[in-house]
Amino acid sequence: MEASSEEESKDGQNNQEDATESLMQGEKMSEAVEQQQDPAQAQPPMVAEDGSPANMELEESKEMTEQGEPVEVPAEEPAVPTEPLIPAEYEKLAKGCEENPEDFNGWVYLLQYVEQENHLGVVRKAFDAFFLHYPYCYGYWKKFADTEKKHGNVQVAEEVYRRGVQAIPLSVDLWLHYMSFIKDNADHEDPETPGRIRAAYEHAVLAAGTDFRSDRLWEAYINWEMEQEKLANVTAIYDRILGIPTQLYSQHLQRFKEHVQNNNPKHFLSEEEFIQLRVELANVAAAANGEGGETTPADELPPGTEDLSDPAKRVTEIENMRHKVIESRQEVFNQNEQEVSKRWAFEEGIKRPYFHVKALEKTQLSNWKEYLDYEIENGTPERVVVLFERCLIACALYEDFWTKYAKYIEGYSIDGVRHVYKKACTIHLTKKPNIHLLWAAFEEQQGNIAEARRILKALEATVPALAMVRLRRVSLERRHGNLEEAEALLREAIAAGKNTSETSFYAVKLARQLLKVQRSLAKARKVLLDAIDKDQKPFDAKLYLNLLELEYSGDVQQNEADILACFDRALSSPLPLDSRLTFSQRKVEFLQDFGSDINKLVTAYDEHQKLLKENESAKRKAENG
Amino acid sequence: MEASSEEESKDGQNNQEDATESLMQGEKMSEAVEQQQDPAQAQPPMVAEDGSPANMELEESKEMTEQGEPVEVPAEEPAVPTEPLIPAEYEKLAKGCEENPEDFNGWVYLLQYVEQENHLGVVRKAFDAFFLHYPYCYGYWKKFADTEKKHGNVQVAEEVYRRGVQAIPLSVDLWLHYMSFIKDNADHEDPETPGRIRAAYEHAVLAAGTDFRSDRLWEAYINWEMEQEKLANVTAIYDRILGIPTQLYSQHLQRFKEHVQNNNPKHFLSEEEFIQLRVELANVAAAANGEGGETTPADELPPGTEDLSDPAKRVTEIENMRHKVIESRQEVFNQNEQEVSKRWAFEEGIKRPYFHVKALEKTQLSNWKEYLDYEIENGTPERVVVLFERCLIACALYEDFWTKYAKYIEGYSIDGVRHVYKKACTIHLTKKPNIHLLWAAFEEQQGNIAEARRILKALEATVPALAMVRLRRVSLERRHGNLEEAEALLREAIAAGKNTSETSFYAVKLARQLLKVQRSLAKARKVLLDAIDKDQKPFDAKLYLNLLELEYSGDVQQNEADILACFDRALSSPLPLDSRLTFSQRKVEFLQDFGSDINKLVTAYDEHQKLLKENESAKRKAENG
Repeated sequence: MEASSEEESKDGQNNQEDATESLMQGEKMSEAVEQQQDPAQAQPPMVAEDGSPANMELEESKEMTEQGEPVEVPAEEPAVPTEPLIPAEYEKLAKGCEENPEDFNGWVYLLQYVEQENHLGVVRKAFDAFFLHYPYCYGYWKKFADTEKKHGNVQVAEEVYRRGVQAIPLSVDLWLHYMSFIKDNADHEDPETPGRIRAAYEHAVLAAGTDFRSDRLWEAYINWEMEQEKLANVTAIYDRILGIPTQLYSQHLQRFKEHVQNNNPKHFLSEEEFIQLRVELANVAAAANGEGGETTPADELPPGTEDLSDPAKRVTEIENMRHKVIESRQEVFNQNEQEVSKRWAFEEGIKRPYFHVKALEKTQLSNWKEYLDYEIENGTPERVVVLFERCLIACALYEDFWTKYAKYIEGYSIDGVRHVYKKACTIHLTKKPNIHLLWAAFEEQQGNIAEARRILKALEATVPALAMVRLRRVSLERRHGNLEEAEALLREAIAAGKNTSETSFYAVKLARQLLKVQRSLAKARKVLLDAIDKDQKPFDAKLYLNLLELEYSGDVQQNEADILACFDRALSSPLPLDSRLTFSQRKVEFLQDFGSDINKLVTAYDEHQKLLKENESAKRKAENG
Repeated sequence: MEASSEEESKDGQNNQEDATESLMQGEKMSEAVEQQQDPAQAQPPMVAEDGSPANMELEESKEMTEQGEPVEVPAEEPAVPTEPLIPAEYEKLAKGCEENPEDFNGWVYLLQYVEQENHLGVVRKAFDAFFLHYPYCYGYWKKFADTEKKHGNVQVAEEVYRRGVQAIPLSVDLWLHYMSFIKDNADHEDPETPGRIRAAYEHAVLAAGTDFRSDRLWEAYINWEMEQEKLANVTAIYDRILGIPTQLYSQHLQRFKEHVQNNNPKHFLSEEEFIQLRVELANVAAAANGEGGETTPADELPPGTEDLSDPAKRVTEIENMRHKVIESRQEVFNQNEQEVSKRWAFEEGIKRPYFHVKALEKTQLSNWKEYLDYEIENGTPERVVVLFERCLIACALYEDFWTKYAKYIEGYSIDGVRHVYKKACTIHLTKKPNIHLLWAAFEEQQGNIAEARRILKALEATVPALAMVRLRRVSLERRHGNLEEAEALLREAIAAGKNTSETSFYAVKLARQLLKVQRSLAKARKVLLDAIDKDQKPFDAKLYLNLLELEYSGDVQQNEADILACFDRALSSPLPLDSRLTFSQRKVEFLQDFGSDINKLVTAYDEHQKLLKENESAKRKAENG
């Protein structure tokens, strides 16, 4: 299983290529989209059509980040003072995107358009709107930052990066771009600069450094410390990465060994570790040679990291120290290698670790699922969470993984669950009902009835006329004693029904609720009778069946007349013959099982025979063309 | 439409051929059966195997006719005094017939066997048993009578004929045989003989003379009166037949004209008609010639049928009378021809007017149906009844025609209905449940509960384990307040169920009855739970569904725990996955529509998702083989 270092670096390269594909893909798609465009529209008009640029500008400052916080353009860097009018073409494209945010190509075209327009106002509006829906497209964060920088807004660019890494903290690529940006724009005269850069690297590895594919970030950090000639810091970083299962785990050990061989322990070790090792080595030597031998007793060692005075002993100490240092790291490495080996197949199975609107292959999805199950079973909660976060970049559009995440988190943090649902429902799956229903149920479980109600209402506003959502709203109100509201919601749904099937569906639900919850047979009956009166082709036998069930629910002997009236209503209805046959059959059964009068049974039987014959001759006619 | 007299006589011939085919057919079949027999068994042993001939003989006198009256061998003619033992072969064949009376070939073989045995005791037993099932096989009545006569039992033979024409009074052939028998065996020295024979002919034409194909009987009667030289009687018979729609209606007119032309009115007219005509003619002549002409005034006519004195007037009177007689018959004929023409197509459609066990073609059946409908719409009740009787010879094995007959008769005579049902159920359709159920319902409608109960019980004894019959018995007891008996009948059916499907069926019925009629939810629940406990593969979701319906029938909010327990019972049952999926789906719906607790809803939803996934992977496995 252990990959050769050549393969590893190849993998690393692939990874880099993959990592940029997302952005590349976007650009290629935009070209394709552009080619399909009407050439006459390819150069959008620069004059606004509705003449309301001022209002639009005013609204711009209200744009939100995906965390819902206002994006404030820093005061000291006023945005392009001579901002031109917002072009009508922009409005048109942006409107298209807002109306149909699932159409990724539309966004790609919008972003490409604003870039070529070189109009910072609309660039910001466009990117801000885009990131509300696609915060995981790390390449676009860099593009946005680049554009701001191109306009000279370095601090705004850095703010964009900060928003970016907050939105997708596991993106090693985005961190690397961000680190380059920080280093490029740092004031190297300022003595505090290295500290600031180091803090930024720390932030990066804390956020993304446990990702199996975070090697490039760690290497960048190590290289930078090497450049700073902080060899003890390098050792400390190796001490972290050697314990983290990553793709290039064995390359790190190799390079660490070189680092140890090429440098002096007093440079690459912390003073604390150095002194500790020196004492250990002295004690070991003393014990080996017996007391009073040629060794330097521990209490005669020089202070701090000063060299031993004896050159031979000095060389021996250095070699022994190197040996000891590598020996202790080798143990950690071995342990880590075990962990890597357990995950290698899963990691190999991840072919597209980044976000994309295109569907993932089934094998990819099942690989994620199995990997998560493995980690939940065997890993630490921290590992599980990181894996979920990685998974939910690649699988952000898959409800099941969000649900799985929320269920997992439930065991640890209520706020964590809420955060997962919110992120899923407000960013990635705004139109998926199931996860919204789960979120609403979760809030109801926490006692937040108003929030549950708000979630369901908002979903209904986004995706109207979904029965499952309307019924959940009814259910919520009913559970909390708002029977009038529950009834009103069902009546509203009946009135809004687009066809017989919808209307009957809700009428049946309402009738059952009136009967079983409000305990009013009369109201329930009226609902069904009204629905039957309004019933249009194709006629719905369900209404009659439910009316029957309703009449049947009471005392069948006392209600015999009502039940028979219900049968007769169905039998004289415009229902198709086969439905009427079913009612006729059930009428005979009812009269046999519960009816009081043999005459009625005989009559019903006769009528059933007639219907059967009618049906047979209809069938024969149909068969003969 | 009017057929030529050649065609008519051809038709008449065909009819005669058809009429004998039934018996012929029987003989041909018996030959076929015989050929299939094991040659070793072709000569049955003459010695009884069980050694109980005395008992068998004793039982013989209890044989019933199809009207249920004992057949008494006339006392003055003691049956063969030296009756041999009943052969074992006979017992064997007779047992086969009794056990499987629908096997007509078995009977044919039995009757052929007894005839060749020349053993009058078993001949009588065999024919009597046969006629209980096949009274419409007129040829066998003749055979039976011939056999009796061969043994010198003329009076017994006549009794056989009498029974025969009572069993199948519309059989023109049987009447003709019977008439030949009577004439052959009459004492021609006895002056009362012609009167007796005439009475027999009258009996025959009253019974069968309105049949469309009764011409041969009428002709025989006419010919016999001609032989007796009772020309006025001949005219009287023509006067009847000329008004009856029959196949050879125009031939009768032709022959009647010859009869008039060849004979003197004073011979072929009744004295009454003769005198009336003479007066009429005299008045007409007087009016024509003016008063005081050459005509004989009415008051100077000779008394009675004495000839007029003037030879010329005599000849004129004879011719005028013939003309008048034919003229008045022609009117009746014309009217009758109208009636014939309306029925000609239907009569042409009747290809097999006699009884046969073989199925009738569909076109024959629909011809009968349409003919009956026509006659019900247009004919007199007498015509309708005759047509039904004719139809029920050809269609004796068809339930629908019997039912139609009973329904028709219902408007005229309750006893008539009872007679039709009894004949259908006890002779021709002993194993058909529907007509028995109708009969039982009819008796119940008349208030004869005990008779209704007896009919259903008898049917169940003949054709055991029919759910429709058992449920009708339950229904009868319930309607008359015998709830314990109704319950016991259902419990008995549950216990006797041959498989899960039967047991569950009755358990569900019983549970509903206990809940809805006895109003005991606890008893109903126990029935279903017991059935579930005993449920064997293939497991029956119906039981769980009904248990659910039961729990659901009360207050769903108060019963929430019971309803959920019922769901959980189904979900943890060995039911197939797709059934469990349905229950799981319904559980979610129940909790959504009526449940009190969002947590339970969420849990049920989760469990449903798991089941769905399980189902999907099971499907995939199945698809991949």
